[in-house]
Amino acid sequence: MALTEEQDRDIEAARAAEARTLRPTVPALEALLFRALPVLDHGFVRVIDYMGDDGAVVQAARVSYGRGTKAANEDRGLIRYLMRHRHSTPFEMCEIKYHVKLPIFVARQWIRHRTANVNEYSARYSILDREFYIPAPEQLAAQSSVNRQGRGAVLQGAEAARVLDLLREDATRSYGHYIEMLNEDEGGAAIDPARQGLARELARMNLTLNAYTQWYWKTDLHNLFHFLSLRADAHAQHEIRVYAEAMLRTVEAWVPECFAAFRDYRLGAVTLSAQMLAVVQRMLAGEAVAQRGSGLSQREWRELMEMLGRQS
Amino acid sequence: MALTEEQDRDIEAARAAEARTLRPTVPALEALLFRALPVLDHGFVRVIDYMGDDGAVVQAARVSYGRGTKAANEDRGLIRYLMRHRHSTPFEMCEIKYHVKLPIFVARQWIRHRTANVNEYSARYSILDREFYIPAPEQLAAQSSVNRQGRGAVLQGAEAARVLDLLREDATRSYGHYIEMLNEDEGGAAIDPARQGLARELARMNLTLNAYTQWYWKTDLHNLFHFLSLRADAHAQHEIRVYAEAMLRTVEAWVPECFAAFRDYRLGAVTLSAQMLAVVQRMLAGEAVAQRGSGLSQREWRELMEMLGRQS
Amino acid sequence: MALTEEQDRDIEAARAAEARTLRPTVPALEALLFRALPVLDHGFVRVIDYMGDDGAVVQAARVSYGRGTKAANEDRGLIRYLMRHRHSTPFEMCEIKYHVKLPIFVARQWIRHRTANVNEYSARYSILDREFYIPAPEQLAAQSSVNRQGRGAVLQGAEAARVLDLLREDATRSYGHYIEMLNEDEGGAAIDPARQGLARELARMNLTLNAYTQWYWKTDLHNLFHFLSLRADAHAQHEIRVYAEAMLRTVEAWVPECFAAFRDYRLGAVTLSAQMLAVVQRMLAGEAVAQRGSGLSQREWRELMEMLGRQS
Amino acid sequence: MALTEEQDRDIEAARAAEARTLRPTVPALEALLFRALPVLDHGFVRVIDYMGDDGAVVQAARVSYGRGTKAANEDRGLIRYLMRHRHSTPFEMCEIKYHVKLPIFVARQWIRHRTANVNEYSARYSILDREFYIPAPEQLAAQSSVNRQGRGAVLQGAEAARVLDLLREDATRSYGHYIEMLNEDEGGAAIDPARQGLARELARMNLTLNAYTQWYWKTDLHNLFHFLSLRADAHAQHEIRVYAEAMLRTVEAWVPECFAAFRDYRLGAVTLSAQMLAVVQRMLAGEAVAQRGSGLSQREWRELMEMLGRQS
Repeated sequence: MALTEEQDRDIEAARAAEARTLRPTVPALEALLFRALPVLDHGFVRVIDYMGDDGAVVQAARVSYGRGTKAANEDRGLIRYLMRHRHSTPFEMCEIKYHVKLPIFVARQWIRHRTANVNEYSARYSILDREFYIPAPEQLAAQSSVNRQGRGAVLQGAEAARVLDLLREDATRSYGHYIEMLNEDEGGAAIDPARQGLARELARMNLTLNAYTQWYWKTDLHNLFHFLSLRADAHAQHEIRVYAEAMLRTVEAWVPECFAAFRDYRLGAVTLSAQMLAVVQRMLAGEAVAQRGSGLSQREWRELMEMLGRQS
Repeated sequence: MALTEEQDRDIEAARAAEARTLRPTVPALEALLFRALPVLDHGFVRVIDYMGDDGAVVQAARVSYGRGTKAANEDRGLIRYLMRHRHSTPFEMCEIKYHVKLPIFVARQWIRHRTANVNEYSARYSILDREFYIPAPEQLAAQSSVNRQGRGAVLQGAEAARVLDLLREDATRSYGHYIEMLNEDEGGAAIDPARQGLARELARMNLTLNAYTQWYWKTDLHNLFHFLSLRADAHAQHEIRVYAEAMLRTVEAWVPECFAAFRDYRLGAVTLSAQMLAVVQRMLAGEAVAQRGSGLSQREWRELMEMLGRQS
Repeated sequence: MALTEEQDRDIEAARAAEARTLRPTVPALEALLFRALPVLDHGFVRVIDYMGDDGAVVQAARVSYGRGTKAANEDRGLIRYLMRHRHSTPFEMCEIKYHVKLPIFVARQWIRHRTANVNEYSARYSILDREFYIPAPEQLAAQSSVNRQGRGAVLQGAEAARVLDLLREDATRSYGHYIEMLNEDEGGAAIDPARQGLARELARMNLTLNAYTQWYWKTDLHNLFHFLSLRADAHAQHEIRVYAEAMLRTVEAWVPECFAAFRDYRLGAVTLSAQMLAVVQRMLAGEAVAQRGSGLSQREWRELMEMLGRQS
Repeated sequence: MALTEEQDRDIEAARAAEARTLRPTVPALEALLFRALPVLDHGFVRVIDYMGDDGAVVQAARVSYGRGTKAANEDRGLIRYLMRHRHSTPFEMCEIKYHVKLPIFVARQWIRHRTANVNEYSARYSILDREFYIPAPEQLAAQSSVNRQGRGAVLQGAEAARVLDLLREDATRSYGHYIEMLNEDEGGAAIDPARQGLARELARMNLTLNAYTQWYWKTDLHNLFHFLSLRADAHAQHEIRVYAEAMLRTVEAWVPECFAAFRDYRLGAVTLSAQMLAVVQRMLAGEAVAQRGSGLSQREWRELMEMLGRQS
């Protein structure tokens, strides 16, 4: 499990300290606040703080003095209109802060989203925990033969066992040597008093990329939706997608109307190029269109047929 | 006064709706929440929402599970250390949202700060209020003769009276014609049923730059400090500085430790160039240094003497 | 015309100074460099500098050491793939810098695009030219009766004439008073030696929003495409759309392959929501779908029928 | 050495293809273009493209039509004024693009600078080279006993030898197992035809953090100066500082006036807090000030004495 007893106590202490506020407050998200949603073998996502709610999006779009003066179905209609027409600024008026524990190779993908605030645990300053990600057997996929950045069939038998052994052994050995080079025990005392110990900022380079790190990550709802549209997608790597999926649950609790609009107009939406649209129009007019003569490449044709739920 | 009775009622209604939350909460800022702090003749700043407090900065810097586990003076020391050494990311973990009413020419300066979220009242969509900024007599300054972007002595007598008349008349006439071209009364009905009325997105171009607009503006504490360090500065134009000063009061209520560090290490700080530092070192060693032979230009020498509180 | 003779001379002087470079160079854009493309009655767009070309996008996507090692049709395929799948970072590797002269109310829309670099002519520091935008008669549209931020029919006869008179008179009078308050002639001497002149940072507030300003504006190709997708769109206000259209011509000269992909996959593309896609699938299966029972609101139904080129 | 023969050939081919351009061009930077400046044991920095020069900063500050119409010493004075008063936008008008090869743990520090464009070599898609950073013996420092994120004395004798052995062995073994799990030889053929090979996006997690990656990194001059002020600083980790130092050389060749101003007003400058300034003023007035009674903490006192070049 991801948390120590002391961490659990800290979280329960934080949850015990209730205050009164005039700010927009969302009970469904308060119920999740501070709690760790487990992800992968040692990771988690937990909501640390939030600002705004569905009403804050509406209020910003109208630049109004009060809140909720309109009927609920007008507010919903406005939110759906804003999402459909890609009006981004009202969604930027909501903000959320997460505490995330994640493997370093996942952190390296995640950090590519630049419009966010990050404070990462510093291995220049502190010592990382002895925890590394080892994939579950059903995630041990072969390289895809058709997609250079995708997965194929799940490895089986001896090959799978060998991979798991290598991942576990190399991570464990590298971590052990990291501690040896640091020459520090958990209390900070020298393991071997005859040695000085390597600087932390150097020793960390011996860790493997499946070691876990953690950070505080804060962003606004518009940029969070952008992150989720890319990372909760079927083409995202499994190890980051599971984080995005845990975050989707927190967003649904937080801003249910925005979430529903996001699901309908972004997650479940498709974009047709000018040429694809022309093909659909011809098909709707009753014409039998084939890839040859469609104006689409084979790859685009296959993508269109997939969107339309047809055999290609 | 800036607010209508209806707006005051909306604000009081918002202040009546208290909720319970587990989030970090700051009573001193709750006391200000939603209330308009008047600025200029028709403008205001009011805090609409906030996220985080002094403790959130400390927590992010430590990437810790709980809050406030250290002694208060250790937290203060950490905040001061972070500010002194320009560690920006922990301050990004706090967020604040303002509703601001301001003249358009001030809005044009303000919007140059790009790392913020903005929703402005749309004059493409709605009709602006009949309100324009007219400077108070003591702000009616002449062009500075030494600084091309500064103010000199206050205008007096006939010249001052003429300027005030022109500003008032031109703004009033332009606004009157704006409404005439729109051909809409306050209820949205045609003033002259025989006319169609010009599109709002066109009619607005007849307004003068001292007309008031309003927006929601949200930013994090680091970027707010950057804004305030530039706009609460003596070199900032008076008409934006008064907004910055009202915001300083809200920041002091919100994050008193961060505010004190900002005051000491940013607002009240000076930066010495390599050459200026060399001059100070020579002076401290007892040498009588003059501008000639100092390695500083006359302008830099004057700036240094001002910093040191000396006659130049 | 937008430029004075002196400005024309400056531009020709710049065009005369050719240099040799190892950087990627695009002759078709060099032919346009520095030249003003006229927009509206006094505005223009001109390309001042650029970095990169179609090949730079490909090179960045491959993180390769050299350029153009692959066949041209592979490069084109890669660019189209990147655009279709919204890979944004390779397009960020190209950069362009414009000098733009534009009415202030257009500048206020434009500046909402935050991911760009801007240096605007400062009316705190300098005096603005006596130039204001007056719409051509065919652009003098009434407010739309169906779209609160759109235009309806073109105004005719007396109403049109009255609007043009008001716009011209108010802008001219406000500008005249601006100069009177400044009390400066073109050479910088006092018009009336008995007066001090109002500070420039104050006097500017008397200008109308159709006064022209100018700026240097620099952005990368990804963010430029985002700007163009919103501002070259049929829903954009005419007065900014004409700038976007002039810029489209410069992009086509600069990066023809990226431009073609942008046109096919962004400008000419449509996005179908999950519910819209379901409707199209039912129609393709031969079902006669009506708005009732479609799962779409009337507004969404109308939008879908427009996309598909059908009567709604 | 960092480059293969084929890469060297690509670079020489790029340097052979000269073109004519009207853009601002800097011969001193052209001389460096594409060439790799070696950094660490296998890394490098090389300039791939640039936009603008010293004159472009001046031109943007003046929003002028032409270039270089003023005397050179006026341009220098303006650049120094802009730097001294932290006017950032004119420096944003210059842009530079680097190709960098660097250890992953350095890349993780570097990427924290968000206002830049990045395309990194993808280990989801491709196979990383067999190259890892092993510190030179004189860089093998112990943990500092006074600064939790700094280095102390250089390790000697058996401890140093053991650290070097561990770093080399663990990196080599992890890389070997990475290739074994991938089951691909350099030509892309299966090493063991009986195995499928693990997906690249999974196998990479076995690499150590001193493995080398590479990217294209592009930023504007203002943000580059910010990066360099932090990373060329004495408090930066040696392994990133050496990259910053190589980049300083390219900036000096590119924009010598901006570079000189940056050196004087940023790199060599110090910032005094309000309290520190008061101490300096008292000292200049002849008072003997000690830490007690100075209003400074011991740590701040020590920092001030260091700035002033005095014994603390």
